[in-house]
Amino acid sequence: MVISHLHCLQSVRVSFPCSPSVSNNYYYGRDNFTRKSSSLVYASTNNLDRDLHLQSKVETVLDSVKWDNRGLAVAIAQNVDTGAILMQGFANREAVATTVSSRKATFYSRSRSMLWTKGETSNNFINVHDIFLDCDRDSIIYLGKPDGPTCHTGSETCYYTPVFDLLENQQDKEDKLALTTLYSLESTIAQRKGELEVPQSGKPSWTRRLLLDEKLLCSKIREEADELCRTLEDNEDKPRAASEMADVLYHAMVLLALKDVKMEEVLDILRRRFSQSGIEERRSRNSQS
Amino acid sequence: MVISHLHCLQSVRVSFPCSPSVSNNYYYGRDNFTRKSSSLVYASTNNLDRDLHLQSKVETVLDSVKWDNRGLAVAIAQNVDTGAILMQGFANREAVATTVSSRKATFYSRSRSMLWTKGETSNNFINVHDIFLDCDRDSIIYLGKPDGPTCHTGSETCYYTPVFDLLENQQDKEDKLALTTLYSLESTIAQRKGELEVPQSGKPSWTRRLLLDEKLLCSKIREEADELCRTLEDNEDKPRAASEMADVLYHAMVLLALKDVKMEEVLDILRRRFSQSGIEERRSRNSQS
Repeated sequence: MVISHLHCLQSVRVSFPCSPSVSNNYYYGRDNFTRKSSSLVYASTNNLDRDLHLQSKVETVLDSVKWDNRGLAVAIAQNVDTGAILMQGFANREAVATTVSSRKATFYSRSRSMLWTKGETSNNFINVHDIFLDCDRDSIIYLGKPDGPTCHTGSETCYYTPVFDLLENQQDKEDKLALTTLYSLESTIAQRKGELEVPQSGKPSWTRRLLLDEKLLCSKIREEADELCRTLEDNEDKPRAASEMADVLYHAMVLLALKDVKMEEVLDILRRRFSQSGIEERRSRNSQS
Repeated sequence: MVISHLHCLQSVRVSFPCSPSVSNNYYYGRDNFTRKSSSLVYASTNNLDRDLHLQSKVETVLDSVKWDNRGLAVAIAQNVDTGAILMQGFANREAVATTVSSRKATFYSRSRSMLWTKGETSNNFINVHDIFLDCDRDSIIYLGKPDGPTCHTGSETCYYTPVFDLLENQQDKEDKLALTTLYSLESTIAQRKGELEVPQSGKPSWTRRLLLDEKLLCSKIREEADELCRTLEDNEDKPRAASEMADVLYHAMVLLALKDVKMEEVLDILRRRFSQSGIEERRSRNSQS
């Protein structure tokens, strides 16, 4: 098993966070365990030391995981931007070690008794930004960004079968993704946008009115932003601030729907700006000013 | 097993979505399988029919789950508003049936060989709004709202051990929740707010400047909202709209930090307004107008 980790760690060297200076020189220095005057060999030996140190650390972390009697732990892949649970599989030591080194969500297939990296056939890899262990150390989150739909059915995530709808006999609604609040709202707005061409009787919904009247929409966005500011300027209470923010968010999301922009794209931008906080933030600020 | 489901479905009747009219009358009618002229008995028999029908549907859904050889499937509890993965356990038929009827996330404890409802000792229940099965029907999401911290350690979620930090020897950062982009940004802003009293050398971060200057912050929020509107009014491209929305969101979140309002509170408001879409939306609109 240790050999296979070594293999994983050595064969996939792209963007390994703890070993930023690992280079191809590594292989020149592999058989050199004494430091020589050659700076190339010296650097390579340094890299080797660093890799052995890193590998030892990976082993320590893997030792701390409570693998079940099959040597497995539950591994859940989650979209780093939207929070959507993309899929759930199982991982063994090698799968986690491979994910650590390759930054591609990797699992152990119980049916095929082999390692598999999500995306190895579909090219829809899940690019792992961070890995978390739970308090019992027997459950793992791969927090990452998917290259495309995760489910083999082509669905964005594997969770599209709502139990309560099944119980209510809403078979037509069977394909309804497990959406959290922000994306459920986005979905509702998108649905209203899709219905714009359909004539409706009765009073139109507020979302429909906003979608049909850009002037009204923009005046509302400016108005709600102003009201949010006033909660600070006029020292209004917390519930009022939360409510005004909800208004800003909702109206701005109606505009996004008209522009065909997804909240995930917005969050992707924010992550890139802020993920390294200081640096990104300054960059963002400079580009704004 | 069927008996225990019956027990679950009968013993916990609160807010069962598919059986809204189930009442205490049910027990009067339990032994009455023929319809009589008494409206009470008639109604009760109707309820009994409905319950038997529902129970049969629950059984059908449970039959469709691919339970492993221990009769278990993975069950993941996710915060409906933030998307945070709260905890992961295992569920058997009875656990899912109980969750369906009680709307409290319920699991099967492998160590104690018994059913347990999260919160039964801590009172931090996870109030389940929806349940999703994955494409293979061997993995379940309980999408719900936690009453309080989910982890037995008092942590908001069980996932607070970041592997890459462990590998980088950042032991002091061990308690870092698995946060998706929006909440990671919120956390960064909160951190900057916490550092306001600490004197800093060099140029302050943009977030720090905004936090220290309410006038600047509010002028930026109004400006960014205006720029977002212009992407629609002036027919600017999609990336521009996404970028302006990112600006609106970030600056508004700095204001929320100053008001001590969490994004989760904002999303809670949006969910309540829109979860039943039409009705809530009209209500929301009426209250706005």
